[in-house]
Amino acid sequence: MRHVISVLVENKFGVLAKVSGLFSGRGFNIDSLCVGETMDPTVSRMTIVVKGEDKILEQVTKQLNKLVDVIKVQDFTEISYVDRELVLVKVDAPPKNRAQILEVASIFRARIVDVNPETVTLEVTGDQGKIKAIVDLLQPYGVRELVRTGRVAIARGAKALKSLKE
Amino acid sequence: MRHVISVLVENKFGVLAKVSGLFSGRGFNIDSLCVGETMDPTVSRMTIVVKGEDKILEQVTKQLNKLVDVIKVQDFTEISYVDRELVLVKVDAPPKNRAQILEVASIFRARIVDVNPETVTLEVTGDQGKIKAIVDLLQPYGVRELVRTGRVAIARGAKALKSLKE
Repeated sequence: MRHVISVLVENKFGVLAKVSGLFSGRGFNIDSLCVGETMDPTVSRMTIVVKGEDKILEQVTKQLNKLVDVIKVQDFTEISYVDRELVLVKVDAPPKNRAQILEVASIFRARIVDVNPETVTLEVTGDQGKIKAIVDLLQPYGVRELVRTGRVAIARGAKALKSLKE
Repeated sequence: MRHVISVLVENKFGVLAKVSGLFSGRGFNIDSLCVGETMDPTVSRMTIVVKGEDKILEQVTKQLNKLVDVIKVQDFTEISYVDRELVLVKVDAPPKNRAQILEVASIFRARIVDVNPETVTLEVTGDQGKIKAIVDLLQPYGVRELVRTGRVAIARGAKALKSLKE
């Protein structure tokens, strides 16, 4: 089963290597991972998407909680959450195809971030389904390059995942 | 100096730990890191933002290139590129403040992803400057939670960072 996990960690060097080492040590491959600052510059937040056996993942989560630099771990599996991803996609767009590509962009509320005589680069955000749909539509034109941020997730409702430090 | 680096890697377990280990082994702290799939499911693309001495970073880049699972490394420092980040931000929004918060959202073309009687959660994308501007504007209302994907980058123009495999 696929799990989306948020981990609040101390913003120190080595923490990312330790956390990703914990997953790979157990043979988990990480589908996507993001790490960025929070409102507190001493705290980073990682969002990890992994597929694996629930039981083993539970062990990994417990081990994560034991790491000194880990402040909090949340598995979103059992709670209601929103997840989003940002994708930059560079598509072949000779003038004869450009209007069609811009039409696809407009349907998906994608933004144009770069254009040149050969290609158009779009910025799209959404959940997995939306991203897949637009990429599938663009693929016949020729996708030259694609960069995904990986998913970030946040719980629905007013409750927040916070560190004790904040 | 701050560097934005893209690394194409084999989508295997352990690669992320190896790459992040290389940076932390040299004492570099990673400002942000994203890793996600590319069009080729066997290849992942990492975008890493690090701050550090150019000379040492050059050594790290060379060592990255030597890793078996690393397909290609690109430092965006000397080329023209676009970078974007996605942020989910949960803000205190009692009914009396809600209209003001939605106004800020509309100015920054942020999208509303969740609302409840106490809070509003927005999705914002942009470069560092735009993200900072909206977060600064929202802070007085009370930011309950913030998740950033970290930056992804893509070169301007038609040229693409591709693996030999593709």
